Amino acid sequence: MAKTNPGRFFEDYRIGEVITHAVPRTVSGGERALYHALYPSRHALYSSDAFAQECGLDGAPIDDLAAFHVVFGKTVPDVSLNAVANLGYAEGRWLRPVWPGDTLRAESQVIGLKQNSNGKSGVVYVKTTGFNQDDDPVLEYIRWVMVRKGDLDAPAPDTLVPDLKPVVPADELVIPEGLDFSRYEFKLAGERHRLGDYAVGETIDHVDGVTIEEAEHMMATRLWQNTAKVHFDATNREDGKRLIYGGHVISMARALSFNGLANAQMIVGLNAGAHANPCFAGDTLRAWSEVLEVADTPAPGVGAIRLRLVATKGGIQDFALKGEDGKYLPHVLLDLDYWALMPT
Amino acid sequence: MAKTNPGRFFEDYRIGEVITHAVPRTVSGGERALYHALYPSRHALYSSDAFAQECGLDGAPIDDLAAFHVVFGKTVPDVSLNAVANLGYAEGRWLRPVWPGDTLRAESQVIGLKQNSNGKSGVVYVKTTGFNQDDDPVLEYIRWVMVRKGDLDAPAPDTLVPDLKPVVPADELVIPEGLDFSRYEFKLAGERHRLGDYAVGETIDHVDGVTIEEAEHMMATRLWQNTAKVHFDATNREDGKRLIYGGHVISMARALSFNGLANAQMIVGLNAGAHANPCFAGDTLRAWSEVLEVADTPAPGVGAIRLRLVATKGGIQDFALKGEDGKYLPHVLLDLDYWALMPT
Amino acid sequence: MAKTNPGRFFEDYRIGEVITHAVPRTVSGGERALYHALYPSRHALYSSDAFAQECGLDGAPIDDLAAFHVVFGKTVPDVSLNAVANLGYAEGRWLRPVWPGDTLRAESQVIGLKQNSNGKSGVVYVKTTGFNQDDDPVLEYIRWVMVRKGDLDAPAPDTLVPDLKPVVPADELVIPEGLDFSRYEFKLAGERHRLGDYAVGETIDHVDGVTIEEAEHMMATRLWQNTAKVHFDATNREDGKRLIYGGHVISMARALSFNGLANAQMIVGLNAGAHANPCFAGDTLRAWSEVLEVADTPAPGVGAIRLRLVATKGGIQDFALKGEDGKYLPHVLLDLDYWALMPT
Repeated sequence: MAKTNPGRFFEDYRIGEVITHAVPRTVSGGERALYHALYPSRHALYSSDAFAQECGLDGAPIDDLAAFHVVFGKTVPDVSLNAVANLGYAEGRWLRPVWPGDTLRAESQVIGLKQNSNGKSGVVYVKTTGFNQDDDPVLEYIRWVMVRKGDLDAPAPDTLVPDLKPVVPADELVIPEGLDFSRYEFKLAGERHRLGDYAVGETIDHVDGVTIEEAEHMMATRLWQNTAKVHFDATNREDGKRLIYGGHVISMARALSFNGLANAQMIVGLNAGAHANPCFAGDTLRAWSEVLEVADTPAPGVGAIRLRLVATKGGIQDFALKGEDGKYLPHVLLDLDYWALMPT
Repeated sequence: MAKTNPGRFFEDYRIGEVITHAVPRTVSGGERALYHALYPSRHALYSSDAFAQECGLDGAPIDDLAAFHVVFGKTVPDVSLNAVANLGYAEGRWLRPVWPGDTLRAESQVIGLKQNSNGKSGVVYVKTTGFNQDDDPVLEYIRWVMVRKGDLDAPAPDTLVPDLKPVVPADELVIPEGLDFSRYEFKLAGERHRLGDYAVGETIDHVDGVTIEEAEHMMATRLWQNTAKVHFDATNREDGKRLIYGGHVISMARALSFNGLANAQMIVGLNAGAHANPCFAGDTLRAWSEVLEVADTPAPGVGAIRLRLVATKGGIQDFALKGEDGKYLPHVLLDLDYWALMPT
Repeated sequence: MAKTNPGRFFEDYRIGEVITHAVPRTVSGGERALYHALYPSRHALYSSDAFAQECGLDGAPIDDLAAFHVVFGKTVPDVSLNAVANLGYAEGRWLRPVWPGDTLRAESQVIGLKQNSNGKSGVVYVKTTGFNQDDDPVLEYIRWVMVRKGDLDAPAPDTLVPDLKPVVPADELVIPEGLDFSRYEFKLAGERHRLGDYAVGETIDHVDGVTIEEAEHMMATRLWQNTAKVHFDATNREDGKRLIYGGHVISMARALSFNGLANAQMIVGLNAGAHANPCFAGDTLRAWSEVLEVADTPAPGVGAIRLRLVATKGGIQDFALKGEDGKYLPHVLLDLDYWALMPT
């Protein structure tokens, strides 16, 4: 009996099946410090217990995307070890803050399957939920990946493509209990712009750039216990390059967006996301954002802002995103659509 | 309205003005572990709760220079984003230990302004204070930087150059409450030399060298939320190099100085400092120290030692510091004058 | 009086002498997070407080090898600063889990001396014990190193070569108090294989590879306060390479062995170990294991498995270990013999 994990192939998934992912993980101030060393993160709510307490929370939670990466990392051995491509995200919602000391685990339910016409692979849709040690859900999202078949003769499953919302409606976003921005300290947060200062359609060049190093993306990816070999093993590709985990690009771009969106404090929804082109060490990453929508929330002083976050290499090139053929331009690495909470 | 921070220009500062810096930061064992992974730090008082308790403290504080970097980092977006050069430090004092769990914030008061004769820039003097969550000051220092003018037609301000002490007098150093070196365990600290074993004028070659990597200085600099782009963006300079944050050199040199100054436990005063030449990845950093002064303190068994700490690349070259022209030699990176507490 | 530590030479050791090592170190969630960022560690018992509590512990301890490295690092300035080679390990036992908040210190007793026939060096055998803040031993092991003589005219000591057990007998392994694998959750641990699924003589290719970076091994080595210059100073060797701390290879290989040995949860014994060839940045490290022995323990559901862990560069090459001359093949970096606890 082979002892190592070969990963699952397309024919190994069944609609409705619930996969319990290994390995649960307790997070602490250590994970927070590392997150802030790996990314230029400065959102005050995740940096300062005192600031978070002024906003009605018990203290500073673990960064929103750090919680996402911890949950995502657990799914890799069961969902994407034999994946050809990570195709998309939808209906992501942050349901509860993650605190230092919490232990996170994850489950995924298979909600869609569609074999490709070439018979060699198929698309698997999973709904993943992260839980804390009290079995309270902290995060949920749908993702779909293209997975190779192990046995090309395995019969194609009935096709089921789930009906996905293009955007999480603002009134379905979950606001952390107690959150109150009525005493929000803009000076300490780093910028004076509130929700009303942002216009739908407005674009923001976040100015700064970061040149990516191998040691950093590997440390980040390991921190989430994402062990996909393509990120670590320089002998794995013919060109000797290590592909950078897409989540590293997401976190770097989000951190760069502080400069212009310092008050987009908490990510609470993930509407869509595409890893448009691969990222490698040596690339200099930049970011721009577009305001897509604004909305009210029931919490005092708390609004919601829907943003497109684009990461690029080789400059932001006038906010260009796609070519005439409808495909992402080669300098675009990431196109992410998310909701964040911002003082009104 | 532009959303990103353009930084302040010389004409934007007013004498007496107090700048509240973003972003407050809660520190934990995570920041300590990272500090000890990024630098070969071994001073026992910052490494061991048990050792610190034997010295009368509640536990091991966050390293002295880590506290300095956290406070310094907050000032960068308001003080040095458009700086041409970081010119000097004076009158620095550590006022209170920083403990894991503390939240630090910073304020700076403008205490001096002097436009340069070319009319294109000027020198700004600020006194920066770091506070904890109880609004107790933990650290203060004066620094002056040369800042570009944004509007060359802006009128020159009245010149005010503050009267700075060349050295913090020993009797103005603040000894942490309860500190007591009368039961100091030299074996656990790593060396047997006490204050009386050091002679004024004595020089110490700290022997060890560290070759600097990009990933490390960027992680360190982000950890302090210092986001000056010159440290991160390899496309920012014509030569494709990333300038290393001067504080990284300070911390590396201080950590190397353990070998010969293991009992120079706590930095409590910063008298002066010059970043003599730039440091880049690939440089092999070494350090030497010169004993400048020794003094008593009122605390039991606690003396003060004033040290010159010099960081070099390309060997220490017989303790050479400046050429015949009075300028720093090209291999000298740092010349720092500080006070530390040492058992008598 | 020279202030820096020249290290000890062969003639400086006396049989029976006990060396108190500097510097005690308090560990926290910060060290754990860094360990999990530097190595692809996923053993559930060290990752999750909840999982560890289900196994009868108070929470997740600090990783077994992290505790080893902290203790080992302290011995370097006193034992191996002038070492020519680290020759072997024996009789290693983990005696008590290390918890976040514990402060570790170390002592070594000289238990053997043998001058080499060339008169220029000799072998020093030490038994090292790590203690926590309550003076309880947490770890002990014997190691022997070849150390240069400082004074070639110093007389040779009487030869004493200690009688070392080739393997720690299974009934001398210390099982952590309360450990109980009867409710062990295999799904959360990541694999379904229990002790009975492993056959003596079975070999496991752990599949994954990691290409090593300078920044990572230096951060790891500093984290253990191991300051041997050969790991940090690129000017120290003629070829400009930095030798990677052997413990970095041990931890990387052990973490890679998760894939196939996810349930080999806690290392409790170290029988032998050889650093067969040097490792440098750029090497792609892989690992394989061989099952050497299985045993019962008195704890409920807890068995012991004795494993050979081999790290290689340039592929695992069909589990080849030594050539016809009895010497390790050039691609073999590490050959480690240890005991781990596994659910029965």
